[in-house]
Amino acid sequence: MFNKILIANRGEIALRIIRTCKEMGIKTVAVYSTADNDSLHKKFADEAVCIGPPPSKDSYLKIPSLLAAAEITNAEAIHPGYGFLSEKAEFSRICKEHDITFIGPSPDSISNMGNKTMAKETMIRNEVPVVPGSDGVVENIEDARKVCEEIGYPVIIKASSGGGGRGMRIVRAAENLQKSYSMCKNEAESAFDDPDVYIEKFVEDPHHVEIQVLADQHGNVIHLGERDCSLQRRHQKILEEAPSPLMTPELREEMGQAAINAAKSVDYEGAGTVEFLVDKNKDFYFMEMNTRIQVEHPVTEEITNYDLVAEQIKAAAGVELEQKELKMRGHAIECRINAEDPEHNFRPSAGTIEVFHTPGGHSVRVDTHAYAGYKIPPHYDSMIGKLIVSAPTREDAIKRMRRSLEEFIIEGVKTTIPYHIQLMDDENFQQGKFNTHYLDTFKFNPDRN
Amino acid sequence: MFNKILIANRGEIALRIIRTCKEMGIKTVAVYSTADNDSLHKKFADEAVCIGPPPSKDSYLKIPSLLAAAEITNAEAIHPGYGFLSEKAEFSRICKEHDITFIGPSPDSISNMGNKTMAKETMIRNEVPVVPGSDGVVENIEDARKVCEEIGYPVIIKASSGGGGRGMRIVRAAENLQKSYSMCKNEAESAFDDPDVYIEKFVEDPHHVEIQVLADQHGNVIHLGERDCSLQRRHQKILEEAPSPLMTPELREEMGQAAINAAKSVDYEGAGTVEFLVDKNKDFYFMEMNTRIQVEHPVTEEITNYDLVAEQIKAAAGVELEQKELKMRGHAIECRINAEDPEHNFRPSAGTIEVFHTPGGHSVRVDTHAYAGYKIPPHYDSMIGKLIVSAPTREDAIKRMRRSLEEFIIEGVKTTIPYHIQLMDDENFQQGKFNTHYLDTFKFNPDRN
Repeated sequence: MFNKILIANRGEIALRIIRTCKEMGIKTVAVYSTADNDSLHKKFADEAVCIGPPPSKDSYLKIPSLLAAAEITNAEAIHPGYGFLSEKAEFSRICKEHDITFIGPSPDSISNMGNKTMAKETMIRNEVPVVPGSDGVVENIEDARKVCEEIGYPVIIKASSGGGGRGMRIVRAAENLQKSYSMCKNEAESAFDDPDVYIEKFVEDPHHVEIQVLADQHGNVIHLGERDCSLQRRHQKILEEAPSPLMTPELREEMGQAAINAAKSVDYEGAGTVEFLVDKNKDFYFMEMNTRIQVEHPVTEEITNYDLVAEQIKAAAGVELEQKELKMRGHAIECRINAEDPEHNFRPSAGTIEVFHTPGGHSVRVDTHAYAGYKIPPHYDSMIGKLIVSAPTREDAIKRMRRSLEEFIIEGVKTTIPYHIQLMDDENFQQGKFNTHYLDTFKFNPDRN
Repeated sequence: MFNKILIANRGEIALRIIRTCKEMGIKTVAVYSTADNDSLHKKFADEAVCIGPPPSKDSYLKIPSLLAAAEITNAEAIHPGYGFLSEKAEFSRICKEHDITFIGPSPDSISNMGNKTMAKETMIRNEVPVVPGSDGVVENIEDARKVCEEIGYPVIIKASSGGGGRGMRIVRAAENLQKSYSMCKNEAESAFDDPDVYIEKFVEDPHHVEIQVLADQHGNVIHLGERDCSLQRRHQKILEEAPSPLMTPELREEMGQAAINAAKSVDYEGAGTVEFLVDKNKDFYFMEMNTRIQVEHPVTEEITNYDLVAEQIKAAAGVELEQKELKMRGHAIECRINAEDPEHNFRPSAGTIEVFHTPGGHSVRVDTHAYAGYKIPPHYDSMIGKLIVSAPTREDAIKRMRRSLEEFIIEGVKTTIPYHIQLMDDENFQQGKFNTHYLDTFKFNPDRN
């Protein structure tokens, strides 16, 4: 096992990793930017090295500084956390070249999954379901018809050069195909100066369901069940839960096996997450694989009693994965607490936290780097903590989350706590009736809190 | 179910009860003394009523004030917490007379268990093992011999009028009986002016192991396994854990059944704890039954996923107990955090808490009424919080507790945190080698922290 690990990150995840290292008897090195001088990850690590000023490219993203910090402190391994350099194949490769263990998958695994086209092809070869569609550009209406008959309606026509929701058109019946196809090509031409379009099955009202996998260096891969992360604002997850309200034991088994196949197809090592869309018929489609620890990993920890960071470290040290029956207990929910103002379109709320009182009691977990007196630096993301609760049932977990949110007192900055409280009270949420678009229509009522 | 519950208590347990009430959708009434004006239980309850000044006899123990507060606020039930009036049969009876539900057992159950002689007799009738011994006073050496042959050595001879460790003599072999018997009688005569002595089996190096039971109003009783509370300072528990390091599935089954018999013998209702001594041969003996929620109940909650306060409330409302298989997960430890100075013989440390930073992360629970700026009133006990962790194994739980204790930052008053850290590092503790006397010899090293 490692004697000392450098944590190439900041905020709650740096603190999270320090906690597990302490429990494993591993010394820790924190790195921090000059903007993070008063941070808890610096305080709680055994050693701390300043790696430069903000913005991140001059510190947390600066590979030479990180390697120098590791070499000065004799750290044998680097944990990248999430974000920053965690999914940069180059960083994984450079660590290896410097004889420092990167706690994560190999450079090849990262880059194979990082290239979305390549990843999709690999999945098809390995019988992991992907969203069916045309094999690249659809040249003419005859080909379009053929594709659509094969995959079935509804379909979505997408401009090859489009993105961010632009240049797309949903077609629900064969009689509308010709018109939509022509219009989409015309729009693509005028908007992107490229008339090429391709066609995919349109996944209606999907849930975002992801499978946590663990893999060791000896070819063993297991899955730890799913997380439902459908509640997103502008593609940012804001609440995650496990199990998914739509899950059945059979579907979990099927998706779990698909996720294991996905991981095996790229010789994956460590903890990873395979993200799927699940439609209302409970058909599921591979989206992408995240080759790192995720923000929402605690919901899986609470119901499975695995320590996922410990599993990452053990995998990187070559420890063989224990094969045991997956036992899940109850239901867990995580709310991301961001320093954002839900009354004003979630604009970041800078400033100093004056009062910081965290909730407590049965099965309530708080992962945070914030404290009373903490000045939130403007250079990084706005998440100041995660509140995770678990309970025997989803209904109980929602009630526990609601009372815990009420108990969470933060003064000095605006936070998303009032938004989460209203979400807990929302009947659709309570009944599990939501999909990845749900928060577009869910309205926060500023007068209610 | 109740609409509103009054909590006749203060501190962490009042807050603990409020949390469960909120999760159950039950309104709460806090009562507080003038010394507790800035308390969190007052802040977090739906209503709060001042019931008088300290000391407790003028407020928290003043039954007329509590009943008046319940009547003014239309509370239908009273939760007594622990301590204060929780084991006063009279309070349970008066509540009943005023048509207010006492959340706890009947007055008769409380008084039957409160009288130790009566309780012991009841246990014998119901085949719950008690420490074997003479049937009252031993009149002469012939009777003494007879008793000792029956119960076996070692025995302890105790002065009938003795107490607090005085007037006792351990006898390990028959040849020493006559001399010890005579000396004990002489000592008893001179010390207590009463030569009467009785004889009991001497339980060597015992563990304090208690069984949590739940009983409903319909005659159903279940047990939720044990807690080991052997680590005590002057008969005050300071650390509790579940399971007990000495437990086996067979012994748990046997002790669980004995505890169920004990509860049934007094027609018990609600949550209760049957305390046993367990000797090195794993023979166990009934000590007493606590007819209330206990300080250390969270360790059972964390491994069984039961909410014991919710179970108390449901039982008092007449809900039938769900009969399901007892599933325990992992190991839980609780450290009591007291505002006491371990460097100076644990003298209470009064004052204002300046900094209060609680630990977080995977399976870490904090139950506390303290906060930054809280002035600890001198009128009540010194416990300012409980830190509870759980993990898959006892070894992991000890490591998690150690890092959590280190993360727990309290400034302004002295606390027992440094003492607990040294206990976590103690090899005997780590190996489960301790008994109820262990902390008499365990030495805190003030230079180490």
